[in-house]
Amino acid sequence: MEVSNSYVVIKAHIDGSPKESDFELKSESISLLLDSGSNDVIVKNLFVSIDPYQLNRMKSQSSSQMYCTLAAAINPGQAIDAYGVGKVLVSGNPEFQKDDLVVGFITWGEYSVMKPGGMLRKLDPMGFPLSHHLGILGLSGLTAYAGFFEVCKPKKGEKVFVSAASGSVGNLVGQYAKLFGCYVVGSTGSKEKVQLLKENLGFDDAFNYKEQTDLKATLKKYFPDGIDIYFDNVGAEMQEAAIANMNVFGRVAVCGVISEYTDRGRKAAPDMIDIIYRRIKIQGFLASDFLNVYSDFISTTCDYLQASKMHILEDISTGVEIIPSSLIGLFRGHNVGKKMVQLADCLIDAHI
Amino acid sequence: MEVSNSYVVIKAHIDGSPKESDFELKSESISLLLDSGSNDVIVKNLFVSIDPYQLNRMKSQSSSQMYCTLAAAINPGQAIDAYGVGKVLVSGNPEFQKDDLVVGFITWGEYSVMKPGGMLRKLDPMGFPLSHHLGILGLSGLTAYAGFFEVCKPKKGEKVFVSAASGSVGNLVGQYAKLFGCYVVGSTGSKEKVQLLKENLGFDDAFNYKEQTDLKATLKKYFPDGIDIYFDNVGAEMQEAAIANMNVFGRVAVCGVISEYTDRGRKAAPDMIDIIYRRIKIQGFLASDFLNVYSDFISTTCDYLQASKMHILEDISTGVEIIPSSLIGLFRGHNVGKKMVQLADCLIDAHI
Repeated sequence: MEVSNSYVVIKAHIDGSPKESDFELKSESISLLLDSGSNDVIVKNLFVSIDPYQLNRMKSQSSSQMYCTLAAAINPGQAIDAYGVGKVLVSGNPEFQKDDLVVGFITWGEYSVMKPGGMLRKLDPMGFPLSHHLGILGLSGLTAYAGFFEVCKPKKGEKVFVSAASGSVGNLVGQYAKLFGCYVVGSTGSKEKVQLLKENLGFDDAFNYKEQTDLKATLKKYFPDGIDIYFDNVGAEMQEAAIANMNVFGRVAVCGVISEYTDRGRKAAPDMIDIIYRRIKIQGFLASDFLNVYSDFISTTCDYLQASKMHILEDISTGVEIIPSSLIGLFRGHNVGKKMVQLADCLIDAHI
Repeated sequence: MEVSNSYVVIKAHIDGSPKESDFELKSESISLLLDSGSNDVIVKNLFVSIDPYQLNRMKSQSSSQMYCTLAAAINPGQAIDAYGVGKVLVSGNPEFQKDDLVVGFITWGEYSVMKPGGMLRKLDPMGFPLSHHLGILGLSGLTAYAGFFEVCKPKKGEKVFVSAASGSVGNLVGQYAKLFGCYVVGSTGSKEKVQLLKENLGFDDAFNYKEQTDLKATLKKYFPDGIDIYFDNVGAEMQEAAIANMNVFGRVAVCGVISEYTDRGRKAAPDMIDIIYRRIKIQGFLASDFLNVYSDFISTTCDYLQASKMHILEDISTGVEIIPSSLIGLFRGHNVGKKMVQLADCLIDAHI
């Protein structure tokens, strides 16, 4: 039996802001009968994650492509791997059985043909919706947890600033920080998101950066006693302003710099004299370096979820054809929380 | 009995490059008879240290002045404290006796009247020239030692790049790194200094940055396998170039940014995408935060000196009136190694 698989590719490398015409939906036939001896696993994709870092993979050249296997270059025409959740349709691999739920690096398409050695594991949903395993219990969650606790090494009562605070990682950092006992302010891109951060996520305060003309002065107002921790998701002048307002021994965890991804010339130029005299540490990190805290992260986060102490912010679109505009939307601030695309009904008969 | 004390002051705050006319030599009479009950200690200054950071203290405003007591603002007309070595002439403080050698924060002048609570301690020269206690065994040495071992946390065989490598701190970082088992390349500002680094200090390689037009390409040439540690003394485009050439988990210790001190608009804008994907850490530091390693630093360094494993690079001028041009010279690359000014013969009868 054969099925038709639609999947997203780029038509050429993308070195500026992504636009619809940079992408193409390709279609191919996949046989659901494996050759004898094949170890392949054919997965029906249910949810795929849409993350800003994918754009760095689509550039003609980026340091991401050389230093992080998970962010290896994507070539035009090639299927694009992404974190996601799926269901096994056919398996030649003894580790997986038909109907197993799986999580890992599947593809931006309707089906994934996983070769042995692919990054896939069985998923126990633990009673949570599958979408949570892409966001709060997935890589976004680990990024927030490890970045905040392991890179920033917070102390109770410290003042924390989070940019892109209603984004997939930022909203979780703010929630972890509040639950830990920090004072938390977030920046975001609309009045509605400001309200969401303050009223639903428990941030102590929040502001719309688009309404500010002097970010240094803005942060001075929100942090009259200075910033101890800055969780950076945006880079450029927001990072400069945060560092200008930092206290001694302040820490900057650089998780992402979305405002720099679409413009190679856009850069943060923080004041190094501040960095020296205030003994500030700026550290880039990837969640994949912190698998040692994975079980802590899962148990802490599940506890919080079961006690309804964390708020889930998921932004789900539907259908493979929506993937390009979902990615594009990240760079225009369209998403609220974790952006993902649902590719099939979770309750479908997995045999199509 | 009274003596005349000449000392250096600034005439106004200095916000750009310092020049001779920014300074003035003042003179006052000091009584060598203390009032009854006085705890003052009057010190004949023998050597004072000339360091780039003093310029930050002379600015109308700098973050150094707010976050580091040792770098508090210097106001026009006011005596300027600086690390130095002296000899006690008169003491009302039971901790100090006449003829004691002392080290600590004395003044850029011929005499220092030290009030109780001043940062002064008795000096045991341990058989080394007094000048060594300003440089290799003083704050420059501690800065190099703590910055390299505690901030950079080197591993044997790692590739180390040091800028301003013939400066007071840089030359020591390079030597510690070589003795520890790293590969070390330094940048400096003349052909003669390049030769000095390679032939006398044992650097694996060195280059004259003034002869380079593309620092990224230059560092690529000197570090074909990438940089693991960058000890930054200069900031700006050299820092950008070093980060562009860093390996994963690279570390940047920001000790000083001399190229930015005289020009507020000059800034490093390192590529944050590199910093994220290569998990680079940039950390500002001050030696004063590492007094916990002071005794290790002294014992290790004395051992190296006694075994003639370290080379001493001191640049000594003579006379209080030379202090301004000595400071100015630092920003023009005139010094070779630790710049200091000798104010009196070490063997003088300290009673004038």
